[in-house]
Amino acid sequence: MPELPTTPRGAATSRRILDAAAVEFAERGIAGARVDRITAAAQTNKAQVYGYFGSKDGLFDAVLADLADGLQGVVEFDADDLPGSAVQLYDESLRRPELIRLMAWLRLERRPTGRLSGSDHGPKLEAIARAQAAGRIRAGDPSDLMTLVIEMALAWSATSALYAATLDDPAADHERRRALLHSSVQRVVSP
Amino acid sequence: MPELPTTPRGAATSRRILDAAAVEFAERGIAGARVDRITAAAQTNKAQVYGYFGSKDGLFDAVLADLADGLQGVVEFDADDLPGSAVQLYDESLRRPELIRLMAWLRLERRPTGRLSGSDHGPKLEAIARAQAAGRIRAGDPSDLMTLVIEMALAWSATSALYAATLDDPAADHERRRALLHSSVQRVVSP
Repeated sequence: MPELPTTPRGAATSRRILDAAAVEFAERGIAGARVDRITAAAQTNKAQVYGYFGSKDGLFDAVLADLADGLQGVVEFDADDLPGSAVQLYDESLRRPELIRLMAWLRLERRPTGRLSGSDHGPKLEAIARAQAAGRIRAGDPSDLMTLVIEMALAWSATSALYAATLDDPAADHERRRALLHSSVQRVVSP
Repeated sequence: MPELPTTPRGAATSRRILDAAAVEFAERGIAGARVDRITAAAQTNKAQVYGYFGSKDGLFDAVLADLADGLQGVVEFDADDLPGSAVQLYDESLRRPELIRLMAWLRLERRPTGRLSGSDHGPKLEAIARAQAAGRIRAGDPSDLMTLVIEMALAWSATSALYAATLDDPAADHERRRALLHSSVQRVVSP
């Protein structure tokens, strides 16, 4: 079993590994990533990587969880303001294309169906169910509603089938999409 | 320059190559695909593949265009019935995960931003603009609206960040998602 670092120095090494691995996995995927490049960029060695994360696959999972945690810390998922939450997610997904790319690599390379394992949407679903019970948002399966709203927010993200926006797009384009997204989510979730 | 087949036998070979390549690229992406496996599956040789398609990258582009054409022939994009078009696209995207996967591989491996080159959405955008001018759907940038509606239809597709549905899901799940999608797109596009 991999062991978590127990010293400040170990924690710093683990942090450098996660950051370097995020870049490598986002660029090349799971099969294409090279642990050599990650250890070189993180100024550490394979023994440390395998000690902390077990395997390349374990490291990928840890990076994905770490990036998802980072997003959760920034985007407030508010069941009573899903339009606002969607706009926040639009902005953050453009700031964090690595997370979007890692989820796509995972779907393509490991081919999981259904919900991605490791993602705990329980609190979000309960918040949606409470807002539904109070008549503040439309009835229906909370998971379907959450999926639809989040995917609306990701419509222009790095792996969009239609349009991959970037932070370099003109500010007016982002403003126009935010306005459309906000009013559209409002329409979709209103009771 | 690659040359298109000019004989029925050549057309049949080209068809077998496209079909075998769709399987190989969907499974392994562009870098991971092996032309050897494609020629073996298509019962042909590399000279034919390169003669018709120029390169592995050229073959990938041809497969993607071929799969997109196949989808266009089945899903009617009707600017006056965007909810119905979205439900059709939901169904077909589950029947054609190869197309969804190829678009994701393309985003990950070649990293294009903006719209995918080769995709001609001109007629769809003109149809949306006409429906807007006639007051049948909401005003706003036609491209944003098309992107949002299509991505709503793909919310549960093979590379979804949230939930990858499959044809094996219970029929009631599909029916529930179709109903949510239909009414949601209706709400989003109404004037």
